[in-house]
Amino acid sequence: MKILINKRGKKFLAGSEDLHTDQGYIKKEEIQSSISGDVLKTHLGHEFRVLEANPNDYIELMDRRCSIILPKDLGIMAAYTCLGSGQRVLEAGTGAGAATIFLGNIVGDTGHVYSYELREDFAKIADKNIKGFGLGNVTVKCQDVNEEVDEKDLDLVFLDLPKPWEVVEHSKDALKFGGYLVAYTPYIDQVKLLTRILKKRDFSDLKSIECIMREIEVKDRGVRPKTRMQGHTGYLTFGRKV
Amino acid sequence: MKILINKRGKKFLAGSEDLHTDQGYIKKEEIQSSISGDVLKTHLGHEFRVLEANPNDYIELMDRRCSIILPKDLGIMAAYTCLGSGQRVLEAGTGAGAATIFLGNIVGDTGHVYSYELREDFAKIADKNIKGFGLGNVTVKCQDVNEEVDEKDLDLVFLDLPKPWEVVEHSKDALKFGGYLVAYTPYIDQVKLLTRILKKRDFSDLKSIECIMREIEVKDRGVRPKTRMQGHTGYLTFGRKV
Amino acid sequence: MKILINKRGKKFLAGSEDLHTDQGYIKKEEIQSSISGDVLKTHLGHEFRVLEANPNDYIELMDRRCSIILPKDLGIMAAYTCLGSGQRVLEAGTGAGAATIFLGNIVGDTGHVYSYELREDFAKIADKNIKGFGLGNVTVKCQDVNEEVDEKDLDLVFLDLPKPWEVVEHSKDALKFGGYLVAYTPYIDQVKLLTRILKKRDFSDLKSIECIMREIEVKDRGVRPKTRMQGHTGYLTFGRKV
Amino acid sequence: MKILINKRGKKFLAGSEDLHTDQGYIKKEEIQSSISGDVLKTHLGHEFRVLEANPNDYIELMDRRCSIILPKDLGIMAAYTCLGSGQRVLEAGTGAGAATIFLGNIVGDTGHVYSYELREDFAKIADKNIKGFGLGNVTVKCQDVNEEVDEKDLDLVFLDLPKPWEVVEHSKDALKFGGYLVAYTPYIDQVKLLTRILKKRDFSDLKSIECIMREIEVKDRGVRPKTRMQGHTGYLTFGRKV
Repeated sequence: MKILINKRGKKFLAGSEDLHTDQGYIKKEEIQSSISGDVLKTHLGHEFRVLEANPNDYIELMDRRCSIILPKDLGIMAAYTCLGSGQRVLEAGTGAGAATIFLGNIVGDTGHVYSYELREDFAKIADKNIKGFGLGNVTVKCQDVNEEVDEKDLDLVFLDLPKPWEVVEHSKDALKFGGYLVAYTPYIDQVKLLTRILKKRDFSDLKSIECIMREIEVKDRGVRPKTRMQGHTGYLTFGRKV
Repeated sequence: MKILINKRGKKFLAGSEDLHTDQGYIKKEEIQSSISGDVLKTHLGHEFRVLEANPNDYIELMDRRCSIILPKDLGIMAAYTCLGSGQRVLEAGTGAGAATIFLGNIVGDTGHVYSYELREDFAKIADKNIKGFGLGNVTVKCQDVNEEVDEKDLDLVFLDLPKPWEVVEHSKDALKFGGYLVAYTPYIDQVKLLTRILKKRDFSDLKSIECIMREIEVKDRGVRPKTRMQGHTGYLTFGRKV
Repeated sequence: MKILINKRGKKFLAGSEDLHTDQGYIKKEEIQSSISGDVLKTHLGHEFRVLEANPNDYIELMDRRCSIILPKDLGIMAAYTCLGSGQRVLEAGTGAGAATIFLGNIVGDTGHVYSYELREDFAKIADKNIKGFGLGNVTVKCQDVNEEVDEKDLDLVFLDLPKPWEVVEHSKDALKFGGYLVAYTPYIDQVKLLTRILKKRDFSDLKSIECIMREIEVKDRGVRPKTRMQGHTGYLTFGRKV
Repeated sequence: MKILINKRGKKFLAGSEDLHTDQGYIKKEEIQSSISGDVLKTHLGHEFRVLEANPNDYIELMDRRCSIILPKDLGIMAAYTCLGSGQRVLEAGTGAGAATIFLGNIVGDTGHVYSYELREDFAKIADKNIKGFGLGNVTVKCQDVNEEVDEKDLDLVFLDLPKPWEVVEHSKDALKFGGYLVAYTPYIDQVKLLTRILKKRDFSDLKSIECIMREIEVKDRGVRPKTRMQGHTGYLTFGRKV
């Protein structure tokens, strides 16, 4: 998926149609034959730079109806579970598909992401978003993960659900030996209850973490952490089937 | 690469030889024919569980002569650069190869990691570690990254060097349009100088962050962040070639 | 100084005049004869609760033209210098007088705060604010602290200036043996330079800290740190004359 | 209370006896007639500098049998309750008396600290510590604060108890209008329960915070936060009687 960036830094998703902007339009044929780094001109002569979108570029511009998990939390999750190319992952719930795209980008064509979403409207948006980005290794299932999980031998089960403890047993069956369950939850009460259930179900290497990310501001006047920061997003709770 | 875990949780790397432990030995043939999840017995009857090692398991046990970058920082780096399957990455310096294995695990067989290390002793250890883990998509080069970079069209240049600003121009040439340079540095002074050079070389989307990770302790007595935590590891500075 | 709080929680400073609000007025005689906890009624029958203002109540409502130091930073400063009743303190610069009031409240009638402010407009506002709160132990001096410090044998010199290193020598002369110099600075570059000068001038127990304060949200749905937090205010750098 | 510091920076509490050290002894008469800043010599000729101890100097050297609350948390507590000279404070439990000395130092001779401690052994140590420091404005009571509180019209009730919620009603009776209850608790579960009870008892301005303090290391090689830091001490929960 390509995006076009004008001189002011504004970004536009380039779909399968002509691109119409307040600075004029660019024909779809031109966009399709361009490559990353090219400069295209609108019929009014304004320049737009072509960029092959990465997941973060795309997620920023795609249709989002619900809050998404920040890269910092997805990155921590990936690093502590050794997520990599070729792995098979289950995700629930899909939401708008942002974490799904993140997962799909890492596991690649030799891996697969199975993403469960209960709400039909979300599942549709997510499916559109994921296909729009061009990922062919993701299956969105409009299905209750509490009821049935069809997959086996998974490397990772990633739960972004209000009550992840309800899915612990299912998840264990679906994981391979050595695989991870990870849940993302905003409240400490959820961490507490989930940890109790993970212990009961003999998960090992239990760990709950939160990542506080500080951005550093480098200006001529001096260097300092930014005044504003995200105080909290969610906790990540890990268990391993060993 | 397999690891064997005894009942006390102690882990052993299973190489190509018989495994000798204080609880007896296990023959290499037995280890080789086992699969993840199997239970093997030493000649003294002690049970060891077989586990297919993931990068973190392996890095914990491999030969390390220098400090390594923590998963939290590698994860953040991966997430903000959209590192994924099939990408081509340059790393400098290799050190013991921990970050290299992390990168290699994500980019997979369709991607490649080129890792530059000046010191011959480190390059040798790293190469042994990386091969030991079974990665075939990594090239360790005992070469000064300041002098020459042979690669082109890279998705990511990751610098774990004391003076990353010296490599900014080289790195820009080696990156594809849309690719990222990331440097990991412990000191804020390094962040400041690097940022100035990145600006001068027209990198965009400049960002410097640090990730403070807190572990949560869930006990029967109550829930609280752990008393001890890592106060600081390093800053990650990002620039994008756009 | 009294404040009046209406049923919606809105607070009003009660000066020496009648209080006029959108819910009617209250006569000054009534306010003056009231005590903390009393309920007064406006001529329209709306109830206002009388509260003897503490420094934070007052600072919230007083005339402020410049940014103030947060209680978290003032508290840390006080705790690490053992600020207490009866001490003599020099402050520079005064600003709107918020830190001055904090200091004056702690040192009490047997102590004294000498506060230097270069800008006449700030010195006037500060003086009005401090007198308005009723502190009799503060002297605001519209004077350049770089030029001359008249006081001796001080317990604490607190510097809220862009270039605190210029005042280090003066400050040392003005401190008693065992006394502290503390500077509040937003930039890490200032911390670096100041620390170098403090070392040169033989200050001991050098320490630079920042306090990250997280507020916890306790709701029926669960407990979590607040989503938004102050990412950075300033660093506190301490030196002791020993 | 004086302390003596040798050239290596080691500190000694100077009691009412001769001071014996591994570098020789100093006569009590000499110590008593010295003032802060003087240099005394042992009979072996080693120099010791005299320093009038502040609360932190003293607490570092006094008899401590239980963990103490760090200055960072005491400072935050003081700043958000506007603790100052002349105030009357109740504390429970006393422990070794470190927080008591902090409070006593701020409220001064025109204020008073009433400190409740259930365990007789702690109460004795605390009393000795407090008297040793020379505070005359503290009353240690070996008494269960749950059973009876004799004081009225207090500015602050500070609870360092495992179950602070049991004392909320008592505390409210003992506080003046506008006064604060503050509890220091390590677990988030305690914050949750206490907050519920404070709400029920109509405390207002409820707030729970934790203070993460980072120390900055300024070296010639560069500036960075220290590698090791205190991950968590405790939460401070505030309620106000308004």
